[in-house]
Amino acid sequence: MKRLISLLLLFFTMAAAHAQESCELRGTGDLGIIVERASGSVQVVDTSARKTLFKIEELGDLSHASAVYSRDARYAYIFGRDGGLSKIDILCGKLVKRIVQGGNSIGGAISQDGSLIAVSNYEPGGVKIFSSDDLSLVADIPATKVSGGKNSKTVGLVDVPGQRFVFSLYDSGEIWIVEMRDPKNPSIQRFEKIGVQPYDGLVTPDGRHYIAGLFGEDGMALLDLWHPEKGVQRIMDHYGRGEQKLPVYKMPHLEGWAMAGNRAFLPAVGHHEVLVVGSNDWKQQAHIKVHGQPVFVMARPDGRQIWVNFAFPDNDTIQVIDTETLKIIKTLKPGKGVLHMEFTPRGEAVWMSVRDEDQIQIFDTETLELLATLPAAKPSGIFFTSRAHKTGL
Amino acid sequence: MKRLISLLLLFFTMAAAHAQESCELRGTGDLGIIVERASGSVQVVDTSARKTLFKIEELGDLSHASAVYSRDARYAYIFGRDGGLSKIDILCGKLVKRIVQGGNSIGGAISQDGSLIAVSNYEPGGVKIFSSDDLSLVADIPATKVSGGKNSKTVGLVDVPGQRFVFSLYDSGEIWIVEMRDPKNPSIQRFEKIGVQPYDGLVTPDGRHYIAGLFGEDGMALLDLWHPEKGVQRIMDHYGRGEQKLPVYKMPHLEGWAMAGNRAFLPAVGHHEVLVVGSNDWKQQAHIKVHGQPVFVMARPDGRQIWVNFAFPDNDTIQVIDTETLKIIKTLKPGKGVLHMEFTPRGEAVWMSVRDEDQIQIFDTETLELLATLPAAKPSGIFFTSRAHKTGL
Repeated sequence: MKRLISLLLLFFTMAAAHAQESCELRGTGDLGIIVERASGSVQVVDTSARKTLFKIEELGDLSHASAVYSRDARYAYIFGRDGGLSKIDILCGKLVKRIVQGGNSIGGAISQDGSLIAVSNYEPGGVKIFSSDDLSLVADIPATKVSGGKNSKTVGLVDVPGQRFVFSLYDSGEIWIVEMRDPKNPSIQRFEKIGVQPYDGLVTPDGRHYIAGLFGEDGMALLDLWHPEKGVQRIMDHYGRGEQKLPVYKMPHLEGWAMAGNRAFLPAVGHHEVLVVGSNDWKQQAHIKVHGQPVFVMARPDGRQIWVNFAFPDNDTIQVIDTETLKIIKTLKPGKGVLHMEFTPRGEAVWMSVRDEDQIQIFDTETLELLATLPAAKPSGIFFTSRAHKTGL
Repeated sequence: MKRLISLLLLFFTMAAAHAQESCELRGTGDLGIIVERASGSVQVVDTSARKTLFKIEELGDLSHASAVYSRDARYAYIFGRDGGLSKIDILCGKLVKRIVQGGNSIGGAISQDGSLIAVSNYEPGGVKIFSSDDLSLVADIPATKVSGGKNSKTVGLVDVPGQRFVFSLYDSGEIWIVEMRDPKNPSIQRFEKIGVQPYDGLVTPDGRHYIAGLFGEDGMALLDLWHPEKGVQRIMDHYGRGEQKLPVYKMPHLEGWAMAGNRAFLPAVGHHEVLVVGSNDWKQQAHIKVHGQPVFVMARPDGRQIWVNFAFPDNDTIQVIDTETLKIIKTLKPGKGVLHMEFTPRGEAVWMSVRDEDQIQIFDTETLELLATLPAAKPSGIFFTSRAHKTGL
């Protein structure tokens, strides 16, 4: 009888563990997360069934939050504006670990081999690098000291091949490459006087060209990572706010640059235009008049369409551009506060955050018709697991 | 007491279910399969831990077998040479369903939305399309009748955007586009007289240009899928066996074409050369002398290197080409029978099947050093789950 009772106890323990355990045994290739900025939460979504699987809360200040994925596409690392770095498990819908690693941060990246998470910080200015496993600190890289004894803010942090990270230093006007093949001995290459106040950066999808946008002057800084010995070049002399310092509601995101064929499509600063630039010589080929000041300019994965959202007061509108004719083929009005878009990996659909409607809208990219909606509390960034396999996101 | 006993029974049932259940709760982003051709089995591998998780057997004749992945990256669909189509569950390491859908088949594809699996058959000649869910038949598309009352063999089947499949008809010299937006009513577009005996096809990574290689004459057939109304053009007039009909040990795989920047790198037919072709005009720009007759010519994901394997008797060798200088930077001798290579999604490593060594060899793509080996019985094709997110594989 004693034995029976202990067996029973074991049984109840197992049953309880089962009840608690809400993990899903499933593939992670069609999952994603949606940031709910006002409530500091994220939804885990299934892009095949178009449904929400989990809601994970208490992730801090998620305005401007972004995310990257582990190599196995099970964990998302979320970079909050408050310096928080959260590792969440999207199969079990739970927070694995959360640290506050800085006072004020702006995005991060995961190393090529998936072992390291880098975060760029405003306060204290620099980059910190953590183990993707347990978020323990691997390297602390303070940025150049500037007036007032502070370290420069860092921005535009991306991962590139060769286990390297690249970022820009806002206050000191630099670009740094950090090579982490030996995690205990980061090797840093510094490029100085690259321009006034780099405010964001991007790397081309092949991981070769790093480009920083400048807030303090017109033009952009280009670094060919296959040939760092050639140093930083200036490109697109007229890109920026211009002589008259146009009022700019929102500096456009550089990560949103779309590459399609041999051309890049990018948001003009201040102007109601999308610019078309050759990706061989980085010279402007055309400009396309659009509805407002563009924020994200994103290419459908096959490069045939460009989808554009806009800054306030035009953020209720999306325009779709055909990349062959450079004509606008559709203007959509999803509602106020269209903050972000994400294409499904093979491009048959696009998901869109419509903040003021508390809604995700899903469009067919061929018919350009609304397919479905999902409720979400003030949604902003959308990040699908296919990012685990891409460079520089 | 009765109650106790029934509880105990329930407990033992649960425990037994647990023991039987060998499924792994994990992300699928870093998984893959390795085809073991002689034994009709596949290994499921973890590319982070570099280890084997499962072996799945009784999959029929797997010579020349290829595979695609479900949208959620949990299931692989394996196309066997014997007309077998197997759906395997890589989280639980088991065969879900196997059908023999034709007498002799040569590869397949999964639709953009993941709902359909298409297989191209030699016997009976045509394409069959199945539900990816339960492998039930959705559409049977017989190819054009040719002499002897048979239907033409079909080859070079790929998926392209817009829920379409494209393939070539070997005996009747055609290319067909099948659009499956309404699965009950496939819409077929036929292009005739495209050349003599198309033996394989490929589509560019953006899904725009379909190219068929010709066995019966020199040159290749190009179809711009953005403009099918323009019809099929002939390109690369000298691509092929040439006037003297060189002895060719193995017709090179077209799927192995590497796109890097604005150039394609492709295996010459019969010659010991890799050809460099502009991907805007499809004109030859250069040729690179290599060790033997190339079979697969594959680009590292960032496009900086090309890795080449060779036909018998040179199939013990791999050469690595730098895409800027077009020079061979390394010659490796992994052992006899290097049949296939697959890069990890972000390109830090490449996995290689070395048939006669019964081994998988894993190389670092920066140092070009051997990182690890795994035992495998006569391994051939290697397919990682990142393919779930790509077009035309």
